Amino acid sequence: MMVKTVEWKGKYLKVLDQTELPEKLVYLNCKTREEIWEAIKMLRVRGAPLLGVIGALSIAVEAQNYVCGELSKFKKRLYDTIRYIGSSRPTAVNLFWGLERVKKVIDCGRYGSVKELKEQIVREALAVLEEDVDICRRLGENGSRLLKSNAVVLTHCNAGALATAGMGTALAVIYAAHKQGKKIRVYADETRPLLQGSRLTAWELKEEGIDVTLICDHMAASVMRDKGISCVVVGADRIAANGDTANKIGTYSVAVLAKYHRIPFYVVAPISTIDPKIPNGSHIPIEERGSEEITNGFGKRTAPRGIKTFSPAFDVTPAELITAIVTEEGIVRSPFRRNIAKLLKQR
Amino acid sequence: MMVKTVEWKGKYLKVLDQTELPEKLVYLNCKTREEIWEAIKMLRVRGAPLLGVIGALSIAVEAQNYVCGELSKFKKRLYDTIRYIGSSRPTAVNLFWGLERVKKVIDCGRYGSVKELKEQIVREALAVLEEDVDICRRLGENGSRLLKSNAVVLTHCNAGALATAGMGTALAVIYAAHKQGKKIRVYADETRPLLQGSRLTAWELKEEGIDVTLICDHMAASVMRDKGISCVVVGADRIAANGDTANKIGTYSVAVLAKYHRIPFYVVAPISTIDPKIPNGSHIPIEERGSEEITNGFGKRTAPRGIKTFSPAFDVTPAELITAIVTEEGIVRSPFRRNIAKLLKQR
Repeated sequence: MMVKTVEWKGKYLKVLDQTELPEKLVYLNCKTREEIWEAIKMLRVRGAPLLGVIGALSIAVEAQNYVCGELSKFKKRLYDTIRYIGSSRPTAVNLFWGLERVKKVIDCGRYGSVKELKEQIVREALAVLEEDVDICRRLGENGSRLLKSNAVVLTHCNAGALATAGMGTALAVIYAAHKQGKKIRVYADETRPLLQGSRLTAWELKEEGIDVTLICDHMAASVMRDKGISCVVVGADRIAANGDTANKIGTYSVAVLAKYHRIPFYVVAPISTIDPKIPNGSHIPIEERGSEEITNGFGKRTAPRGIKTFSPAFDVTPAELITAIVTEEGIVRSPFRRNIAKLLKQR
Repeated sequence: MMVKTVEWKGKYLKVLDQTELPEKLVYLNCKTREEIWEAIKMLRVRGAPLLGVIGALSIAVEAQNYVCGELSKFKKRLYDTIRYIGSSRPTAVNLFWGLERVKKVIDCGRYGSVKELKEQIVREALAVLEEDVDICRRLGENGSRLLKSNAVVLTHCNAGALATAGMGTALAVIYAAHKQGKKIRVYADETRPLLQGSRLTAWELKEEGIDVTLICDHMAASVMRDKGISCVVVGADRIAANGDTANKIGTYSVAVLAKYHRIPFYVVAPISTIDPKIPNGSHIPIEERGSEEITNGFGKRTAPRGIKTFSPAFDVTPAELITAIVTEEGIVRSPFRRNIAKLLKQR
């Protein structure tokens, strides 16, 4: 049974506290907007798709619990809650997207009472949840066609169930193949500086009974040469119109190593990740992170004080290094600009 | 003034306690063989060339301090000390090489008294020390010709002053260029799992006033593309007759990335690192290390319990990815098999 990051419990959310992983499996019942705010703020829930779902559900929780018979006052409270939840992680684009989905219902819905509005909000929030689960399932289904039995897959960072409300994006491909009875082995990059590969990917694959081996990031080259890697699967944060893909720092490195070793490199991501307004990767801004994650990441200082660091959060993998992009609507291959445009048009 | 890892003080050794770096600069006076044994065992002194020097000097310390007029008894004590010091790190090849240098003096030297033997041992140990300093200096001199002013150099692990009795191997190239007045900037890979790049390389370069920026290992690809890297310099643990080079895990990854970005990749190492009996890299055995360094490296567990890991200590960079090998006798380029043989013959 796959780990569930979030469950709608009628009046509250049950969420997995990811900050306790991999040591403990702790679930929290978030019954108030304050508890949800805290869970987002403290990264107890994280992962772009999951934050979108949590954003929508947070308003459903408030709608269920705020006692008020007067529609205008009720709406005012919900708008206030949307702003409040948005303040928990102001840079999380997906969180705002999820809040916006519910806000549209309040703005434009046809309802005559608090009761009707409540019902519409809960319905929309659950739709957001179910869409995410469904997209993950279809990513897995489409991507699993690329994996034969006995495949050995290398992945980077966490594009798994823990980042979504469903079975993940890149890891959904592995889960789907595994469920089809294919024998799959995985090498997981630990993914410095924050070790999402170690703390999250290795944990969730192991929980699902998948044969996973944890490595340090720069061991990927040796593993590709000596361990018979069949392909690389990674997620994506943003995909440009020409296929250039921004993802967790280190992804570009893995892509170069895969090219040298003639190993297929697959990006797995929902179509919503593609931004056709971005012509190519050079237009994607790369956030830089602070020094502490590198110099002091595990409660112990391991670098000299005052040392300069460079710590981009993402890198851009040029389309020329990508074998295929797996979406919920199908698999896109080179020439990417033309084939991505075609995919977006046919929706 | 470059950091000194070891100093001969007439009757004892003053050594830098590298386990306190980068937080503290602590020197220890090792006055007994027991103190030296402990310093090696606890990795207070480390680095292959440095261990060779420490091995030789440890016997000189014992010879200076063991009070005994009877030659045969004195020799017996020294042979016993050689075995004892060797037991501190039984896998450190260079340590045994250093001990062997002094043992040959005891075995084959011409001496008629304890006093004469003492003098010969001290002379030999100091010769080992001075040779190491001299080799480092010549590596720096030869390698610095490859660096122009304003060069931006990427390095991996620690092949620096801290690994030798002198100015290092790969880092000697940077120090020499810096002393020639060239403006050099360095990016240092942190080098997981044990972070020698972070703890040692970043520290010693910063101490020498060299502009150094610390990165996580898999950021090297981004840095090569975006930061104008002029070349890579790394050390070597073992070089085969055809130029294939074993070095710290991750070196092969850096070499592949350099090739893709058309950046010269230089190996800097004493001729003693070349083993002409090894025809190519496939004959170099790769030690595997335990899980703990990956799962639990900084005093905090960051991976699920029972997770499988793969942690090779070294990797082999094929000669085709190496632009040149810098030795104390000159710079070797492709075709490596022929040119290495020539270099070894002319000594």
